[in-house]
Amino acid sequence: MIDATFAYALDAKDELGYLRDRFVMHDSELIYLDGNSLGRLPRATERRLQDLITQEWGHRLIRSWGEGWFELQEKVGNKIAQIIGARPGEVIVADATSINLYKLALAAMLARPTRKHILSDDLNFPSDYYIFQGITRLLPGTKLRRLASPDGVHGVSLADFSVAMNEDSNLLSLSHTVFKSGFTYDMAAVTAVARENGVMTLWDLSHSVGSVPINLHDAKADLAVGCTYKYLNGGPGAPAFLYVRQSLQETLSNPISGWFGQHDMFALGPDYTPEPNIRRFLTGTPPLLSLAAIEMGVDTILEAGMPRLRAKSVAQTQFFIDLYHQILEPLGFTLNSPTDASQRGSHVSIGHPEGWRINQALINDKNVLPDFREPDNLRLGFAPLYTSYSDIYTAVMRLRAVLHDKLYEKYTVERTTVT
Amino acid sequence: MIDATFAYALDAKDELGYLRDRFVMHDSELIYLDGNSLGRLPRATERRLQDLITQEWGHRLIRSWGEGWFELQEKVGNKIAQIIGARPGEVIVADATSINLYKLALAAMLARPTRKHILSDDLNFPSDYYIFQGITRLLPGTKLRRLASPDGVHGVSLADFSVAMNEDSNLLSLSHTVFKSGFTYDMAAVTAVARENGVMTLWDLSHSVGSVPINLHDAKADLAVGCTYKYLNGGPGAPAFLYVRQSLQETLSNPISGWFGQHDMFALGPDYTPEPNIRRFLTGTPPLLSLAAIEMGVDTILEAGMPRLRAKSVAQTQFFIDLYHQILEPLGFTLNSPTDASQRGSHVSIGHPEGWRINQALINDKNVLPDFREPDNLRLGFAPLYTSYSDIYTAVMRLRAVLHDKLYEKYTVERTTVT
Repeated sequence: MIDATFAYALDAKDELGYLRDRFVMHDSELIYLDGNSLGRLPRATERRLQDLITQEWGHRLIRSWGEGWFELQEKVGNKIAQIIGARPGEVIVADATSINLYKLALAAMLARPTRKHILSDDLNFPSDYYIFQGITRLLPGTKLRRLASPDGVHGVSLADFSVAMNEDSNLLSLSHTVFKSGFTYDMAAVTAVARENGVMTLWDLSHSVGSVPINLHDAKADLAVGCTYKYLNGGPGAPAFLYVRQSLQETLSNPISGWFGQHDMFALGPDYTPEPNIRRFLTGTPPLLSLAAIEMGVDTILEAGMPRLRAKSVAQTQFFIDLYHQILEPLGFTLNSPTDASQRGSHVSIGHPEGWRINQALINDKNVLPDFREPDNLRLGFAPLYTSYSDIYTAVMRLRAVLHDKLYEKYTVERTTVT
Repeated sequence: MIDATFAYALDAKDELGYLRDRFVMHDSELIYLDGNSLGRLPRATERRLQDLITQEWGHRLIRSWGEGWFELQEKVGNKIAQIIGARPGEVIVADATSINLYKLALAAMLARPTRKHILSDDLNFPSDYYIFQGITRLLPGTKLRRLASPDGVHGVSLADFSVAMNEDSNLLSLSHTVFKSGFTYDMAAVTAVARENGVMTLWDLSHSVGSVPINLHDAKADLAVGCTYKYLNGGPGAPAFLYVRQSLQETLSNPISGWFGQHDMFALGPDYTPEPNIRRFLTGTPPLLSLAAIEMGVDTILEAGMPRLRAKSVAQTQFFIDLYHQILEPLGFTLNSPTDASQRGSHVSIGHPEGWRINQALINDKNVLPDFREPDNLRLGFAPLYTSYSDIYTAVMRLRAVLHDKLYEKYTVERTTVT
C-alpha cells in the first residue's frame, strides 16, 4: 500500500529534490501538474529578466544588440542541442513551433518535389496537421497521409510505417511524445525505417524535450522542432527551436526568407543570399524578452542531466500508475497512457465520463492544476525538476475527494475553451 | 541663429514634454537618437513586466491564459488600430514583421493567381525584398518588380506607378516611411492609383507607425504590417502587427495555418477550419512577455495623440535641418532626406565620406546614439514622445566637436556589422 509516508520517503531520497527550490513556489498548497503545458518560473529567470529589462533595454538600449542579443538564438540553441543529442550549430531558437514546422516541412517538400506525401499518424498535435494541410494546399498534388494508431493510445508500428512508405513519401513527421496519451516513439527505430525507404524525418519534440532522452544524431534524424515553454520552463509562448542536420543545412532553403537568415545581414543588400549554416532558417527579429527567458530553464535541465531526469520521470509516472490502480481505477477511471515505461513520456492521461467536471472541481475546489483534453482526459504532467512524490500522492488524494464528495456535480457539463 | 537658449525655449513650451518622464532615462548625458530602431523603455512597461513575470507566470501559471493572455493579441491589436486608422477587428499582433509580410503577400498572390507580379520600389527595407523573393521562388512564373526611385531619397511618382501597373500586377508593397531617407509616401494617393489598376496594396508601416499619421481605412488600403519596437516602444524584437481590411478577411487564407487561427481551437479537431475573422492570420503561441510589453508604449502614443505627435515630429526634424544648414553642411555633410516636411517621417539621414568613423566616435566618445546605414549615412531618429529640442541641439554640437577635433580618425574604416 502506498501512503503519505511512502511518498515522503521517496522525496527524502530524491537526488534531484534540491532543484525544486530553483523555481518560484508562490502557493505551497498548489499541486501543479501542468508543467507539460507551461513550465514553472525559474528564480534565475526572474532575476535575469529584471536585468534584461532595466539594464539591457532600459539603459544600454540599441547597444545591447551588439552585446549579446544577436548571438542569443544560437547560444540558447547550442544549449538545447546538448539536451537533444545534436551538434553545435545544428539547433537555433526562433519563432513558434508551428512556424518552424512550416519552414522545415515546406523546405523538405520543395527539395524533393517528386515525393508528394507527408506521412504522420493520428496522434499528432493538431496544429501540426493544420500546418501540413496548409502546405498541401500550397503545393498541387501533395497530400497528408495520417496512419491510424492501433488504439488511440499507442503509436503506429514499425511494420505499418514500412508498408505505408513508397516513392511518393517525402517526409515522416511525428510527435516524439504524443500530446494526449504520452506515448513515446522509439526515435532511432522509426527513423531507421524511414531512411530505408528514402523518407526524411521531422520530429516534433515539444512534449519530450527536457523529460525524455533524445539523441537526434545517433538516431540519424533529419529535422526537428520543439517547444521551450513546457519541460524547458522557458516562459509563456517562449520561442521554439528547430534542428537541421548539418549535412542538410546547405541543401534546404527556408521559404520564409527574411533578413535574420541573410548572409552579412547589415550590408542590407537587395537580394537574398542565405547564410550557409543554421542561421538561414531564421526570418525576422526575435522577441528578446521571451527568448532570453529560455536560457536559465535549459541550464537547470543541463545541471540535472537527462539520465537522472528520465529516471525520476519514469519513477514518478510509475508511482502515479500504482496509485491509479490502488485508488482511481475503483472510482471509474481508465488509464489512457502506455503501461510500458519505455513507451511513456512524463505525462499520464486518465479518462472518466465526468472528466470535464472533475477537472473543474480539481482546479477550483482542490487547488490542483492538471489539464483537460477531449473527450474525457485528465492529463497529469510530472515535471521531474520540481514535481515531488508528495505532490503526486496529494493530487490523487484530492482527486479521490472530488469523486467521494461529488464536488464535480456543481459544475456544468458545458465546455468553455480555455484551460 | 539657433543656440542652446533657443532649444531650451522650445522645450519649455513643448506640450508633450511631460511625457519624457514616462520613460526610463538612466543616463541623463546620453543623447538617444535611435528610437526608430529600438524605442525606449516605458516605466509602465517595467512595472507591468514585473507583475506579468512574478504574478501571472510565477503564481497563476497556466490559469493566466484564461485570465487575459488569450485576448492580448487582439486587445493590443485594437489599440494599434486606433493609431493607424483601422477598425476594431482589423489589426492583430503576431510574429515578426517579415513573417506577417510573408503571410499576407503570399495570401494575396494565391487569391489572384493570374496576377503574377509583386511591385515595390528600390527604397524598401531589404527584408521585405527577401520575403518577396522567397514567394517568387515558391510560385512559378511570379516575379518581384522594383521600380526605381528618382534619386535614392524620394519615392516613385504616382505617374510611374501607374505606368508600371498592368494585368499582371497583383500587389504593390511599399514602406510607408522608407528606412534610409525617411521619405514618406502619400498613402491615400498611391493606394488610389493601385486600386484604379486593380492592384492590392500591402503597406509596411514599421518606420511610420507612432510618428506619422496613418489612416488605412480612409486610404482604402488592403493590407499592412508593422513593427512595434520602434516608435511604439514595445521592446526588443516585440511581435509585429498585421492589418487585413475587414472585407478581405474571409477571402484571404493564411498559408501558415496553425492552431491559433483555428476556429474553436481547443476542440483540437483534426482538420484546419480557420476563424472567420482576423484571428485566422495567427499561427502559433505568441511570446507573451514580449507581447505584453507592447501595450503600455501604445497607450502612451494614444495619450499624446497622433496630431500632436506629428506636429512635434515635423518641428523637430525641421529644427534639425535648420541646424544642419547652419552647422553641419559647412563641415561636409549632405542631407539625404526630403526637405519637404510632408514627405518626411521622423528620422533624418545625413551623409559624410567619413560617416562610418564619425558614427563610431559619436557612440564611443560623445555618448550620442544614432545609427549608421550604408554607404555613409548617419540616421538620426527623433522620437517625439521623449526626444527634446535640447537633445537635438546637443547632438549637433557633439557632432561638430567630432569633426572639429577629428575624433573619428582613431577608428578603423573597416566595418563591423552590428549597430
